[in-house]
Amino acid sequence: MPVAAPFARELDRVLRGLDVETVGDEMYDFVSELYPIQRSITGDGVRETLRRVGEKIALDVHEVPTGTQVADWTVPEEWNIREAYVVHRASGQRVIDVADHNLHLMGYSMPIECILPFSSLERQLHTLPDRPRAIPYRTSYYKKQWGFCLTHEQFERLDRNGLYHVVIDGELDNGHLTWAEAVLPGEQAETVLISVHSCHPRLANDNLSGIAVATYLARTLDHLAATVGDRPRYTYRVVYAPGTIGAITWLATQSNHARNVVHGLVVANLGDGGGFHYKNTFAGDTEIDRAVAQVLADRGLPHEIEPFVPFGYDERQYNSPGWRLPVGVFSRTPWGRYPEYHTSDDNLDLVRGEHLGTSLHRLLEIVRVLETNHRYRNTAPYGEPQLGRRGLYRAIGGGDDDARQTELALLWVLNMSDGKHDLLDIAKRSGMPYTTILKAARALLDADLLSAM
Amino acid sequence: MPVAAPFARELDRVLRGLDVETVGDEMYDFVSELYPIQRSITGDGVRETLRRVGEKIALDVHEVPTGTQVADWTVPEEWNIREAYVVHRASGQRVIDVADHNLHLMGYSMPIECILPFSSLERQLHTLPDRPRAIPYRTSYYKKQWGFCLTHEQFERLDRNGLYHVVIDGELDNGHLTWAEAVLPGEQAETVLISVHSCHPRLANDNLSGIAVATYLARTLDHLAATVGDRPRYTYRVVYAPGTIGAITWLATQSNHARNVVHGLVVANLGDGGGFHYKNTFAGDTEIDRAVAQVLADRGLPHEIEPFVPFGYDERQYNSPGWRLPVGVFSRTPWGRYPEYHTSDDNLDLVRGEHLGTSLHRLLEIVRVLETNHRYRNTAPYGEPQLGRRGLYRAIGGGDDDARQTELALLWVLNMSDGKHDLLDIAKRSGMPYTTILKAARALLDADLLSAM
Amino acid sequence: MPVAAPFARELDRVLRGLDVETVGDEMYDFVSELYPIQRSITGDGVRETLRRVGEKIALDVHEVPTGTQVADWTVPEEWNIREAYVVHRASGQRVIDVADHNLHLMGYSMPIECILPFSSLERQLHTLPDRPRAIPYRTSYYKKQWGFCLTHEQFERLDRNGLYHVVIDGELDNGHLTWAEAVLPGEQAETVLISVHSCHPRLANDNLSGIAVATYLARTLDHLAATVGDRPRYTYRVVYAPGTIGAITWLATQSNHARNVVHGLVVANLGDGGGFHYKNTFAGDTEIDRAVAQVLADRGLPHEIEPFVPFGYDERQYNSPGWRLPVGVFSRTPWGRYPEYHTSDDNLDLVRGEHLGTSLHRLLEIVRVLETNHRYRNTAPYGEPQLGRRGLYRAIGGGDDDARQTELALLWVLNMSDGKHDLLDIAKRSGMPYTTILKAARALLDADLLSAM
Repeated sequence: MPVAAPFARELDRVLRGLDVETVGDEMYDFVSELYPIQRSITGDGVRETLRRVGEKIALDVHEVPTGTQVADWTVPEEWNIREAYVVHRASGQRVIDVADHNLHLMGYSMPIECILPFSSLERQLHTLPDRPRAIPYRTSYYKKQWGFCLTHEQFERLDRNGLYHVVIDGELDNGHLTWAEAVLPGEQAETVLISVHSCHPRLANDNLSGIAVATYLARTLDHLAATVGDRPRYTYRVVYAPGTIGAITWLATQSNHARNVVHGLVVANLGDGGGFHYKNTFAGDTEIDRAVAQVLADRGLPHEIEPFVPFGYDERQYNSPGWRLPVGVFSRTPWGRYPEYHTSDDNLDLVRGEHLGTSLHRLLEIVRVLETNHRYRNTAPYGEPQLGRRGLYRAIGGGDDDARQTELALLWVLNMSDGKHDLLDIAKRSGMPYTTILKAARALLDADLLSAM
Repeated sequence: MPVAAPFARELDRVLRGLDVETVGDEMYDFVSELYPIQRSITGDGVRETLRRVGEKIALDVHEVPTGTQVADWTVPEEWNIREAYVVHRASGQRVIDVADHNLHLMGYSMPIECILPFSSLERQLHTLPDRPRAIPYRTSYYKKQWGFCLTHEQFERLDRNGLYHVVIDGELDNGHLTWAEAVLPGEQAETVLISVHSCHPRLANDNLSGIAVATYLARTLDHLAATVGDRPRYTYRVVYAPGTIGAITWLATQSNHARNVVHGLVVANLGDGGGFHYKNTFAGDTEIDRAVAQVLADRGLPHEIEPFVPFGYDERQYNSPGWRLPVGVFSRTPWGRYPEYHTSDDNLDLVRGEHLGTSLHRLLEIVRVLETNHRYRNTAPYGEPQLGRRGLYRAIGGGDDDARQTELALLWVLNMSDGKHDLLDIAKRSGMPYTTILKAARALLDADLLSAM
Repeated sequence: MPVAAPFARELDRVLRGLDVETVGDEMYDFVSELYPIQRSITGDGVRETLRRVGEKIALDVHEVPTGTQVADWTVPEEWNIREAYVVHRASGQRVIDVADHNLHLMGYSMPIECILPFSSLERQLHTLPDRPRAIPYRTSYYKKQWGFCLTHEQFERLDRNGLYHVVIDGELDNGHLTWAEAVLPGEQAETVLISVHSCHPRLANDNLSGIAVATYLARTLDHLAATVGDRPRYTYRVVYAPGTIGAITWLATQSNHARNVVHGLVVANLGDGGGFHYKNTFAGDTEIDRAVAQVLADRGLPHEIEPFVPFGYDERQYNSPGWRLPVGVFSRTPWGRYPEYHTSDDNLDLVRGEHLGTSLHRLLEIVRVLETNHRYRNTAPYGEPQLGRRGLYRAIGGGDDDARQTELALLWVLNMSDGKHDLLDIAKRSGMPYTTILKAARALLDADLLSAM
């Protein structure tokens, strides 16, 4: 009886009591803590990040060796950098130094030491002429090269006639790809996947916001299960993995778990001030698509839902034709649509605690829908049951309007509970909020007027 | 061959000849005759109403004893009132008296006699402050209580300091629920259900208009069958029953007949001046939905079609998940959307003969569609048949435009008569009126270019 | 592997190289050559027309005897006219003479010689009062009568009091109906039908334009197959037949070929300056409907697509319920929607070489879609394949935008190649031009990332 399960009922209570600002500030602090770590798709920066996550929730960390074949890909060499800088020979000044900002070094730059004239150095430098005070974020994972990123202003101050000493000291060698997951076992092996890319360095919204919110989502659900001593309906699996290669590695090595995924969300960009945005799964009408659409519509605030396209984050991998896992993307402003995206301006000023908090609240509302949505069967289907003698007729709820709404919700649930329509269908067709329909279903179940399928 | 049946052809003739004003005036007189009777969901008022209906058409009256279990409900006690009034003790004046207007007494008020101060009486009084000259219509069928309804002006004149003598003299005791039906047997047991709620007292539009139009519909179809000596395609069953409990009783006790219902309409509010309104069946695309939509669209006048919702009249019961009978609601202004609704202003001034007459005409047009709609098969399907040598090419109809329209209708019927599309489908896809398509189908059938499925 | 077939690849090259003006001028000359011939649904005019077509492409000419039963019809008598004129007795002047313009004689006028007063002659004359300088085109194939057509100005100059000598010298007698086809055998018996009505006299757009473009389409495809020594995927069958009776005769006598038709187009009115127009098949969503819609949408120019209706040209016959061949109509301004339609103003000034040329180009683009559209299966479906190591990642195409588009197209084709979606589906859902999707599919096929179904 999903709607009546202790876990689901406690989730209601948690949602009512959630202090979005307080939990938001905690998440903001967590983002700040992770912000300076030098992350990439492999290496110690990722390990350190996951260690910090592990201080918040129980985490299983997995190490996959370089060279492992995963689907069409091979796990790359591990990348660790000790130091990386460019010295202007004449003045001896370090004109670029990764110690100043992680983004200064192109991700996966191969180790090198050399002396170059400006004309040669220039070809290895990346700037944003249109955003002259921001450092761009650049990587080259699968083609061996090196490079530095800097603000355009910094670039323009460089001595055009000088010689430069370049040092990238570190290893790009056999090692491991590190990913992790937090698992909350459910009544069923059927799984809700929450996937976050954990590879981006010093970028706050993309995707420390996703890491923080996913971590607090797992933490909240864990705590909730412990409180009521009840498992959730579904197994929840929060996966932290580097973009593309991480998701592919997870699918290839964890296919037994992947096959259990019945609903999923990639979460990212959850700390900025934009309205919520959802990108549908490939099919576009799966239960997760319907659940997110209902939660966002019920809130009545501006939001956007757009169809699946085969580019973006790791939903590309989950929705690939061999898998077609129903995984959508839940975010605020999506990737590439805010000017600070993939620059040093995606910093701690861009994200705010209250935004992180509201993001968590919405995700918990989505979880509530998934935990409770079900098809029921009206046990007195030959006409309306007599609600009056069961105390259900204008006898629930507060004021008169509320009573009338509740009564309509009861009638909708009774009429549509023919074993073919779930509560989301009823909410949609009736035009009523999901919570109103849920409340009606619970009352009817208590009155033995509904039975589970 | 539905389109060619004598009954269907005679119906054409009847529709052409129907004098909407004359029959409308007859129906108005019938409404006026029934208007003063004190009706409720049980009792002698219903019996007297059905006796008058029985003077117009052959009627089977059924009595179901109090206490009979019907689905989730129990047939209630029978209610009969001799007199009911409130006397102002000081003046000896009857300040409220059901003899003045049936609506003064709340329906199903329990018998009582008592003396009360105004402050206690007040809690038993119902008025409409926003419509101060109208008496509201109130009932309490399933919770034992009593009450009086009065205009707000009348209420304001009451002596706030007086004592009042209340008398409700009558019985609320074991007895019967009374319902009735008029049945016209068809070629098939498959049944068209016309359902009217017969329980409302002294309210003209809701639903004496429905009772009158349904009665004259039955009368017209009976007479038509007798004239041509041919049965209709379908069995027609016009059911008069009190709202909710009556429909539930009918479904529970007449389930063998209910199972035969293939198309149905609840009819009500058919005498006011509003445009026609149709509420779809639960499925929303059944043949009755398509038939009503086509008839209303062909007429080209403003009208509304809205989706099913599980509240309203007895369509709630017929469309309940255990039955899902395809029953829509045909009305003019629907319940609750005209200011006079459920007040003493729903009186003989609100309804007019011409509106009743046009309502009957539309219902007969809907019956024509149901009687004739069918899927046919083109007997010369490998290309167009040569219409010219059969005299069908520009050889039917009046003027040139008409001839061209008829020719197009012939081509549409020939092309779409592949055994998968019925005449309603053809009318809809071609954008042509149903009657034009029907005429073409008849001509093609006469020319042996169509065969019945 | 349709996308990779030599025929399809050569078609790409041909489309890139097609000089629309030069081939347009050739087609215009061909229209001019056929213009003066006296055609009708049978007779020597049709034979002469087909003889000229046979000078352009290999043609099989078929003669079907008068009286042959074809479906619901009978092949009519053959009509040949030596001369036809009207002499004003008093002056001896030939006031109407078919030698001046073919349209002066009503098609299929029976032979006659008589002397008549104006009042009798007048009933046999057809003019267009609203277009006083144009001769109307009139026929009476299946009802024996005679008539002359003339401009309204000419009519008004006739002597109202004169006697007239009418001569229609010729035969309407047993003979044959003549139709022809040009066939290019494909890898499969599955056939693309191109159908043109060949019966209209001295009317340039309707349908010498269709005859010319269909002929050059056949010629281009023949030449292309010879050049590469490869058959097309489909068999192409260009059928020249008189309207209605010709299509019915073809279906009835060539049913083995008709059954192989999987895509088809009736082509007509292809030389005027209007935008392209397509009329869907009966089903409305067949592959030819989708192919034409995609080709026209990709071009980005104004065009119209309208639903099937069972009147028009020979699509009526092909889409009849016994056949339901997926045959649409491809034209510029459709029949009846330009003022010159079916008058002597549908002349060599109305059609232009460039319009004919562009019509041919679009038809070849439609052929390209049909030849290449296919469902493929992604061979590395468990996540995205690594495009980079195959040189497919930002490594195809010209500038950066083009590279980005190509990459997106690769991702779309990979994601949707699940064996259920064809390239047209992918083009539609991605919003990308078919040619971009086709290019991506070819690249992926070359990289062994796609396999044919």
